[in-house]
Amino acid sequence: MPTVNEHFFDVEDDYLFAATDQAIADFERKNPSCRVLRMSKGDVTRPLAPAVVEAIHQAVDEMSQVGGCKGYSPSAGYDFLLRSIAEQYAALGVALSCKELFVSDGSKSDIGNIFDLFGQDNLVLVPDPGYPAYRDVSILTGNRVFPVKASAENGFVAEPPADVKADLIFLCSPNNPTGTAMDRSLMEKWVSYAKACGAIIFFDAVYERYISDPCIPHSIFQVEGAKECALEFRSYSKGAGFTGVRCSVVAIPQELTARRRAGAEVALNQLWARRNATRFNGVSYLVQRAAQAVHTPQGEAQTGEDIAFYQQNIRLLRQGLRNMGYSVFGGEHAPYLWLQCPEGFDSWAWFKYLLAEIAVAVVPGKGFGLYGEGYVRLSAFCSREDVEEVLARLQSISK
Amino acid sequence: MPTVNEHFFDVEDDYLFAATDQAIADFERKNPSCRVLRMSKGDVTRPLAPAVVEAIHQAVDEMSQVGGCKGYSPSAGYDFLLRSIAEQYAALGVALSCKELFVSDGSKSDIGNIFDLFGQDNLVLVPDPGYPAYRDVSILTGNRVFPVKASAENGFVAEPPADVKADLIFLCSPNNPTGTAMDRSLMEKWVSYAKACGAIIFFDAVYERYISDPCIPHSIFQVEGAKECALEFRSYSKGAGFTGVRCSVVAIPQELTARRRAGAEVALNQLWARRNATRFNGVSYLVQRAAQAVHTPQGEAQTGEDIAFYQQNIRLLRQGLRNMGYSVFGGEHAPYLWLQCPEGFDSWAWFKYLLAEIAVAVVPGKGFGLYGEGYVRLSAFCSREDVEEVLARLQSISK
Repeated sequence: MPTVNEHFFDVEDDYLFAATDQAIADFERKNPSCRVLRMSKGDVTRPLAPAVVEAIHQAVDEMSQVGGCKGYSPSAGYDFLLRSIAEQYAALGVALSCKELFVSDGSKSDIGNIFDLFGQDNLVLVPDPGYPAYRDVSILTGNRVFPVKASAENGFVAEPPADVKADLIFLCSPNNPTGTAMDRSLMEKWVSYAKACGAIIFFDAVYERYISDPCIPHSIFQVEGAKECALEFRSYSKGAGFTGVRCSVVAIPQELTARRRAGAEVALNQLWARRNATRFNGVSYLVQRAAQAVHTPQGEAQTGEDIAFYQQNIRLLRQGLRNMGYSVFGGEHAPYLWLQCPEGFDSWAWFKYLLAEIAVAVVPGKGFGLYGEGYVRLSAFCSREDVEEVLARLQSISK
Repeated sequence: MPTVNEHFFDVEDDYLFAATDQAIADFERKNPSCRVLRMSKGDVTRPLAPAVVEAIHQAVDEMSQVGGCKGYSPSAGYDFLLRSIAEQYAALGVALSCKELFVSDGSKSDIGNIFDLFGQDNLVLVPDPGYPAYRDVSILTGNRVFPVKASAENGFVAEPPADVKADLIFLCSPNNPTGTAMDRSLMEKWVSYAKACGAIIFFDAVYERYISDPCIPHSIFQVEGAKECALEFRSYSKGAGFTGVRCSVVAIPQELTARRRAGAEVALNQLWARRNATRFNGVSYLVQRAAQAVHTPQGEAQTGEDIAFYQQNIRLLRQGLRNMGYSVFGGEHAPYLWLQCPEGFDSWAWFKYLLAEIAVAVVPGKGFGLYGEGYVRLSAFCSREDVEEVLARLQSISK
C-alpha cells in the first residue's frame, strides 16, 4: 500500500482561485440575469496579436505538409525561440546563452517543478501577500514557509528579513497582488542577502512588461552578481496574452550551483536539464512559433498595445477609486490594484459584499497571505466599458 | 543553503534517449554525407491529420477575434474535450465521467507528476524492459524500484511477481519497447495482484490504437474491478501523431483511494485536482481543440490511416528481418519490433555497430532495463522508402 503525500493536508482544501471561482459561480447560478464583473482573475481578455495568429497558422500549415511533421521538440525548446529570448535578455544588458534557457508550458508548472531539484525541509521565503502558488507548492513539497511582509509599512514590497536564514526565496516584481515593483537597490539587497545565506532566489518576472519606470529592472539578472544566486521565470501569459496559449521560460545561469550533502557543488542548470529529460517532453511546436512571434518587431508592438490598454484601464480605475475616497496602492507597474477594505470589512467579507451587492468580483487579500488581510486585489484585464461599469457600481454603494 | 535532491545521483547521467541522440549526432558530425536512418526514436513522422489542422486554424481564428479570447483553461480541461474522451471510453464499455478525466500536456509529465500524490520510499514495480521514464522518475522521487521481467520466457510481457508486495505498479500495454500486449487474463491477474497488495496501478495505454486483436483490452478499466486499483494515462502522441502538439489525459476514477498514515482513506481524484490547481494552468486551447478533432469521425479515420501506415511498415520490417534470419518479437500491437542481437554483440555494441557500419540507429535494449540486454528496439515511424532502405542496409551486412 503506497504512502500518501501528507503535505496535502497542510494546505487549504481549495486553491485560492478555485475558491473564489466557486463563490462567483454559485452567485451566478442564483442570479442568472446578473452580469458579474470579474475584476478577480488575472486573466487576459484581448484577442491574440495578429503576428502571433499568423505564426500559428503558418506553423500548423507546416505540420500539415508531407515532410513538415514536427515531432518531439528538443526538451529545452527550439533554437529559434531560445535565440529570440536570449536576444531579449541581451537588450536588457543580460548575457545568457541558449543553454541557460528552458521553454515550458507555463510558469506555474515551473514554480512547482523547480522543487524537484531540491531536498525537503528547506526554509522558503515567500512574499506575503504573494502569489499563493509559492506558498502552497512549498508546503506540498515538504518545505517550511516563512512569509516576508510586503505590507503598507514597507511600501508593499518584500524586504530581506533581519534574523532569518533562508534556503530558497520567491520574489515577484512587479508583485502580485500588490501591483508594486522593487527598485534596483532593493533587488541588490536581496542578492546580498541570498549570497550571505547561500540561498537561491526564484525570481518571477511575469509582470515585467507592465513596468513604467525605466529605472526599475526587468530582470533580477540586471543586478550584479545575481547569476550566482538566482534563477528566473518569464511567462508569456500577461505580457503577450498567452494565458490560453501556454508558454514560459526559465533562465538558469551556468554559474548557479547548490551543494550536495557531502559538499560537492552541482550546477542547477544541469540538474534541470536532467529533470526535464525524464519528466517533460517539450512545448508544442505551435506554441513555440507563437512565442517567437512575440519577439518580432510587429509582435512586440502589437502586444505592447494590449499592455498599454490594460495600463490605461488601471489608471482609470485608480483615479476613479481615489475620487471615491478609497485607499488604493499599486498599479503603476502591474495590472493590479491593491485596495484597502472599508472599515468594518475583512477581505473575505468585502469580497462577499461586493459580489452580493453589485456583482463585482475581486480577490480577498487574505488569500494571498495573512498580511494581505484588509485588502482586495482588482485586476485591469477587462474592457474599457467594464472599467466604467465597475466604477459606476462602486459609486452606487459609496457613501 | 538549500539541500539538493540527492536522488539525481542514483540515476544515469543521461536519460536513455539523450544518450542515443548524442551518439547519433556525433556520428552525423563525423559523417556529414551519410544519411542516418533513425529507427531509434519513437517519434511520428507523418503530417497532422487534416481534421486536426482545420481545428487548429479555427481555434486560432477564434482567439484572434474581439470577444473570442481564450484565457486560462479549466485546469482539468475544457468540457468539449473531456466529453469526447468520456465518449471514447464509453465505446470501450468503460463509464467514466468528465470529473474523472484530466487533460495534460503529455503522459511523460503525468508519469512524473503523479508521484506528487504519494510519499517517498514506496516500492514501485516497473516492467523490465520498459519505458525508462518509469524507472528514472521513481528513483528521482525517492522511491525504490523493483524490475518485473518482461523477457522471452514470459512472452515479453510483465507478470505479477510471486513474492513481492508492491505499492505502485507501472504497466504499459502494448509495451514499449517489446511491442507486445497483455491479454485480458493477464490484466485480470494484475488487478487481483494489486488489490491483494493494496497497490495502485499506473496503466499507460499510449499504444492502444495499435492493437490488432479485438480480444485485447484497450484500457485497464475494461477489466472488472480495475477502477478501485488503477489510474490510466492516454496520450495522443502515438495514436494521433501529437508528439509535437502535446496532449494527453489521465483517468482517475472516483473509486480510487489510498490510505493516509493515520488510516483515513483519501480519493486520489481529489488530490490530483488539488495538485493541479496549485501546479498546473491547463493545456493550450489550440491543443485541446486539436485533440477534440481526433475524436470526430473524420479525425478518427484520418489518424487511423496513419496508424495503418505504420503498422504496414512494421509488418514489412518484421518479414524482412525474419527472412534474413533474425529473431524478431513484438510489432503486432505496437509500432515497435524487439530484435535479438546477433551472437557476439551486446545491445550497446550492436547499436554502435549498426550506426557505424550502415548508419542505422536503433535503441539498445539495455537502456530499457537489465532484462533488455541482448535486444534492440526498432520503431516503424518512418517512410516506406526508409523501411526498404533499412532492410537493404541490413541485408548488406548479413551473412
